[in-house]
Amino acid sequence: MSEHISRRKIFGLGAAGVAAAGAGAIAARSLLAEPPVVHASSTSGAFPFYGEHQAGIVTPAQDRLHFVAFDVTTTRREELTGLLQEWTAAAARLTQGRDAGASGAVGGPPEAAPDDTGEALGLPASGLTLTVGFGASLFDDRFGLAARRPAALADLPRFPGERLIPEISGGDICVQACAHDPQVAVHAIRNLARIGFGKVTVRWSQLGFGRTSSTSRAQTTPRNLMGFKDGTNNMKLEDDDLVRDQLWAAAEDGADWMAGGSYLVTRKIRMTIETWDRTSLREQEDIFGRDKNEGAPAGKKNEFDPVDLAAMKPDAHVRLAHPTAHANAHLLRRGYNYVDGSDGLGRLDAGLFFIAYQRDPRRQFVPVQMSLAKNDPLNEYIKHVSSGMFACPPGVRDAGDYWGRQLFA
Amino acid sequence: MSEHISRRKIFGLGAAGVAAAGAGAIAARSLLAEPPVVHASSTSGAFPFYGEHQAGIVTPAQDRLHFVAFDVTTTRREELTGLLQEWTAAAARLTQGRDAGASGAVGGPPEAAPDDTGEALGLPASGLTLTVGFGASLFDDRFGLAARRPAALADLPRFPGERLIPEISGGDICVQACAHDPQVAVHAIRNLARIGFGKVTVRWSQLGFGRTSSTSRAQTTPRNLMGFKDGTNNMKLEDDDLVRDQLWAAAEDGADWMAGGSYLVTRKIRMTIETWDRTSLREQEDIFGRDKNEGAPAGKKNEFDPVDLAAMKPDAHVRLAHPTAHANAHLLRRGYNYVDGSDGLGRLDAGLFFIAYQRDPRRQFVPVQMSLAKNDPLNEYIKHVSSGMFACPPGVRDAGDYWGRQLFA
Repeated sequence: MSEHISRRKIFGLGAAGVAAAGAGAIAARSLLAEPPVVHASSTSGAFPFYGEHQAGIVTPAQDRLHFVAFDVTTTRREELTGLLQEWTAAAARLTQGRDAGASGAVGGPPEAAPDDTGEALGLPASGLTLTVGFGASLFDDRFGLAARRPAALADLPRFPGERLIPEISGGDICVQACAHDPQVAVHAIRNLARIGFGKVTVRWSQLGFGRTSSTSRAQTTPRNLMGFKDGTNNMKLEDDDLVRDQLWAAAEDGADWMAGGSYLVTRKIRMTIETWDRTSLREQEDIFGRDKNEGAPAGKKNEFDPVDLAAMKPDAHVRLAHPTAHANAHLLRRGYNYVDGSDGLGRLDAGLFFIAYQRDPRRQFVPVQMSLAKNDPLNEYIKHVSSGMFACPPGVRDAGDYWGRQLFA
Repeated sequence: MSEHISRRKIFGLGAAGVAAAGAGAIAARSLLAEPPVVHASSTSGAFPFYGEHQAGIVTPAQDRLHFVAFDVTTTRREELTGLLQEWTAAAARLTQGRDAGASGAVGGPPEAAPDDTGEALGLPASGLTLTVGFGASLFDDRFGLAARRPAALADLPRFPGERLIPEISGGDICVQACAHDPQVAVHAIRNLARIGFGKVTVRWSQLGFGRTSSTSRAQTTPRNLMGFKDGTNNMKLEDDDLVRDQLWAAAEDGADWMAGGSYLVTRKIRMTIETWDRTSLREQEDIFGRDKNEGAPAGKKNEFDPVDLAAMKPDAHVRLAHPTAHANAHLLRRGYNYVDGSDGLGRLDAGLFFIAYQRDPRRQFVPVQMSLAKNDPLNEYIKHVSSGMFACPPGVRDAGDYWGRQLFA
């Protein structure tokens, strides 16, 4: 068995990205290849894994998602920290387009199970980021973490109208995998689950496509499954002041181990698209407060024209969620569209997997969502069916560091 | 509301394809644009809709799938044929990167529901193909079609080990949407479901990614979720004799309306990937009869080296399925990997959505699958949970023709 996986012409989506970026510049997945150069504008390159903050937050939103929530089954603290170290090492490799383990899918002894599952052999890094977070349930007596639970990780209140399914909500640890190729995102989550065998189990997982927000001004605004541009006024990585003040947690917030981290809220929002699709264009536009074609706010012509709240209906979605209605609260959203087949009642099971990062959900997500849950006419067409909240620690500094080291220190 | 949707910088996956092909050459979705030029090598161009055969069969397999099976709820034959005509007109538009209807997502009167749902505004054709098929259940007394059921559309036998779930099996009509952008594939299926409201309901639907077979020699061989190259010896569009003899139905087969059509078998094959991932590399390779890295048959060095069956274990997957074991029976496979979240038991719900086209399942899929179901050691790691079989009629010749015209004539 060769230890060297030859570079090969990559197939599928990746091929387009490679063609765009120049095939010669990209290293395909290989045991010995150097990490690929970062190509922010390509769909095949790699983002750096090490840094002050975790990648996958302000990183320009990739097009595909595999999100997983694990429950920890071991009760031994050393096993948990050992797993976090193993995961960190694997994530450092996977995000650079390498195999999950040192011998890889085909480089180990034939009598052993490979330390990579192989379905991403030959595929480039594809912009993969892996972002970890710790749920409130981890901060119990099992691991001695009760006193370290951040105040900002307060339980979410019950929102009017939500119909949460416990089996697909919560979780001790989450990992968000974003990439431009779903095979690469799935491969990463699957290998983390493989590594965690006997210590964690998959509580729930969600695939998504068609990112529904931009996180950089270099990106165009995508559309959600209601056909509207989504996230026009999203917090973006270029918004230095907002990012500093409203995205990253700081030591003075109370939980020093979270300095440089961020709080993640997920909501799976099922849409009754069949009903929406029979609603008039005018009603759709009134509900959002934007026009469907350009995404311009009511009364304006272009997407990025300043919002004139007075030109909208009092309960327009944009108006209810606007920062001026919530003490200037902003969110960094990076959600995805989903279709989970059909629902057994003749309808597609489709909607938005909402993802938002912020410094303190108590002052950001919660008041905004409470206002929407109470007043938004969009509620006629949507239903929140799952919820998650996770404290995402700061970035991994170098190969000696690991996910959550500050928490367990 | 403008009737003209301006060309805009497209986002996401499409952007890579456009960059590769030259943005100027591609028409973004627009009411008035000319159909985009065919770019077989780009991920944004369009495939022709009209032709002797339906597109989406020998078409080089695109990277994303949304497959849907409908049950017909109307009992009126005229409503059914009317729907097929409406669907055909929409499919002719959608596959060329246009809106589903003439006024589109934003061009109609504001007091009416739009005739396109809008989430693909600004996206290119993305290689979309839409392929229709008729299930055995359509050939009952409701529409007077009982006498027109092709002999080749015989019910599949019960295969050992299968655990079929009726709710996600069968269906009166299927539509296979393949594209390079999942948002485009989902948009197409969703709009067909919207058009069919009151006449059909969605019985089941399945998303897939990472095509698991090539259908052209111009494509590299992709990998399934077991990490192996899949479909190395698949029937390919360049195999003129095989395509003529084993893919397309002919008038002399008995059902003259199917001449130029093909029979589709779908099988959702759940993999217990957690168990597979703990199996040794040697056992994995013995089971398939190929090496995991190159995909070379046992005892050979390169993927496309001639297969030496004697070098494999007697029950190797490649050997059991080989044409020489089944009177030279070939299939044109174009399946997809899937991950449907998790299964509530701590595992990912993942596997292969198998799709195969052929001239006569009684002589092709059935004997091959019966041999595999009885003898393949791979069965320890897989389970067939859904099954479908559909008669896919010949292609639509021109704008005066429609899906299934020959059947209802």
